[in-house]
Amino acid sequence: MTVLMHTLHVELEDRSYPIYIGRSLLADPGLLGRHVSGRQVAIISNETVAPLYVDRVRAALGGVEPAIEKISEIVLPDGEQHKTLDTLGHIYDRLLAEGHNRSTTIVAVGGGVVGDVAGFAAATYQRGVNFIQVPTTLLSQVDSSVGGKTAVNHSLGKNMIGAFYQPGAVLIDIDTLHSLPPRELSAGLAEVIKYGLIGDEPFYRWLHDHISQLRALEEGPLAEAIERSCSNKARVVAEDEREAGLRALLNFGHTFGHAIETAQGYGEWLHGEAVGAGMAMATRLSVEHCGLPEDEIALLLELLAAAGLPTAGPADMGADRYLELMQRDKKVIDGRLRLILLDRIGAARVVDDVPGDTLRRLLEVAPV
Amino acid sequence: MTVLMHTLHVELEDRSYPIYIGRSLLADPGLLGRHVSGRQVAIISNETVAPLYVDRVRAALGGVEPAIEKISEIVLPDGEQHKTLDTLGHIYDRLLAEGHNRSTTIVAVGGGVVGDVAGFAAATYQRGVNFIQVPTTLLSQVDSSVGGKTAVNHSLGKNMIGAFYQPGAVLIDIDTLHSLPPRELSAGLAEVIKYGLIGDEPFYRWLHDHISQLRALEEGPLAEAIERSCSNKARVVAEDEREAGLRALLNFGHTFGHAIETAQGYGEWLHGEAVGAGMAMATRLSVEHCGLPEDEIALLLELLAAAGLPTAGPADMGADRYLELMQRDKKVIDGRLRLILLDRIGAARVVDDVPGDTLRRLLEVAPV
Repeated sequence: MTVLMHTLHVELEDRSYPIYIGRSLLADPGLLGRHVSGRQVAIISNETVAPLYVDRVRAALGGVEPAIEKISEIVLPDGEQHKTLDTLGHIYDRLLAEGHNRSTTIVAVGGGVVGDVAGFAAATYQRGVNFIQVPTTLLSQVDSSVGGKTAVNHSLGKNMIGAFYQPGAVLIDIDTLHSLPPRELSAGLAEVIKYGLIGDEPFYRWLHDHISQLRALEEGPLAEAIERSCSNKARVVAEDEREAGLRALLNFGHTFGHAIETAQGYGEWLHGEAVGAGMAMATRLSVEHCGLPEDEIALLLELLAAAGLPTAGPADMGADRYLELMQRDKKVIDGRLRLILLDRIGAARVVDDVPGDTLRRLLEVAPV
Repeated sequence: MTVLMHTLHVELEDRSYPIYIGRSLLADPGLLGRHVSGRQVAIISNETVAPLYVDRVRAALGGVEPAIEKISEIVLPDGEQHKTLDTLGHIYDRLLAEGHNRSTTIVAVGGGVVGDVAGFAAATYQRGVNFIQVPTTLLSQVDSSVGGKTAVNHSLGKNMIGAFYQPGAVLIDIDTLHSLPPRELSAGLAEVIKYGLIGDEPFYRWLHDHISQLRALEEGPLAEAIERSCSNKARVVAEDEREAGLRALLNFGHTFGHAIETAQGYGEWLHGEAVGAGMAMATRLSVEHCGLPEDEIALLLELLAAAGLPTAGPADMGADRYLELMQRDKKVIDGRLRLILLDRIGAARVVDDVPGDTLRRLLEVAPV
């Protein structure tokens, strides 16, 4: 078996950590062993992912020296609706009932929801324990596994309760993408494309040439795309860990996207699909407001379509609805809408002076 | 009115913060204003303390420029039994329902329980908001207000869920001690004495000369004792924020003390009372095991008595019970009991080689 592995370092002083990207990483006791610090492990996963991958993690842990004495397996119900304080309480109950102490390691095996909940549990169990992320969806591999955002939802808002908490390591085993539904693969590609648009023009052009290989899960290009995405995100996070400024650029397309998700009800549109449509809208606005060359619109729409993503928002969503929902965005400061726009491909910035009628006109013509 | 104020800085790089110690600090809009960063404030207190001090905080906030737009008051039921995830959930509900955003400031007004819960809420609300501690008991002023430990309890253990999260500022208004029951004042003095024992011999000798003034709430000595205590703790915390080593010394007397608290049921013995008895036991053991001069035992017992603290554990608690409970301590690593002992007054260290029969003999003779 070819073992292909890239290692990337997220530089955050004493909170720095490596991201390993490659094939069959889950089967490697050496990798896990290097990052399990005590003799206790709690694997947190969900009922969809656990049957597929938890046995591999268990087997690898079995080869770790010195021997792990206790492995607990906490399987959560699948779905964003379970990303709650109650689920968190269930995790604490299990960890305490099964005698996990401050030297335990929590290993999250799953997508963004599992990573967010397990990460928050790791951040807060006995004031913080060792944490390893094993993201199994493309979206979580290129997005939530870098940057240390952990959270649960509240009935009054998404991700309202959480912490910044960096993992000790991230293992991205690209084999896990073979079990991912194609629609979710496409949703992950939206964030991959985003990294090119906001900060890496060569990568963006490369994506146009390799998008079909990525959808076909060709391992070389896939590992390359994941690494470039993570390294782009890691660079931003290293400069702005707690989201004081630069990190806002990662929200390119997201203010429009969140409005779409909220209007349609979460789950109807996948996050990445809404972000895809949102990026198309933000790119059109960038042409109008920031002088981005007009032909970039067609190039992006072509790439989005090739990635299996929508190129516009829902046909029945009018400008009024967008504006109403966008005003609720966390990035609104003192009533002023802040959008991420592009001066050119690879160069994003925060803009808070888009005239209201420019925005309205864009939103009215968006779903073409 | 004399305004007496000491300012102490806790040095933790980008998490550094000032502790102000003095009279009538709560009435000073300038002090609060300097540390309220946004235009929203949530005061968290409990039903005992809120009627006494929250109006003063509100009045001071009323003088802050630019004007605070929203002040919420969240009053918790009084008592350690409410230091739970449920109480935390209630705080999140209120903050969200009342529209607090990421720029809000949480102000904790109360003792250790209020500070711990409010601090954990601040650490986790929208991944961390600004936090000001206004501790109103001597124990919280000299202990929990320094060091950033926040937590709630779980039915299976105290402080099992929490975070390290530093406040933006701590305001210690010594006027608040006039409303404190004398027994709680004494309990706070146990921790004050501890700082002398583990790291500051001159302070320890000073305490012998000033203990009656402290119990009489004479403001000069009181401010001095609080400042010395906080600065001793701050020095330890600055070197070991996340409790990897040195910070363990702060647990002098606590392993015995926790055993007493657990055996008696929490609330029967106040934490400080149990620590007082525990320090007497640890000091006896230090004479036996570390060569601490024997006359220090009598000196400490005299000081504890003068502080209104017990000098021995409960009469009916045998060695077996101590040993059983001490084995459950968080500081037990691989079954080895780690105790903090004194080589001399002002010089503590972690000891893990106390022979079992030495310890048993000490525990059998302890309640004399």
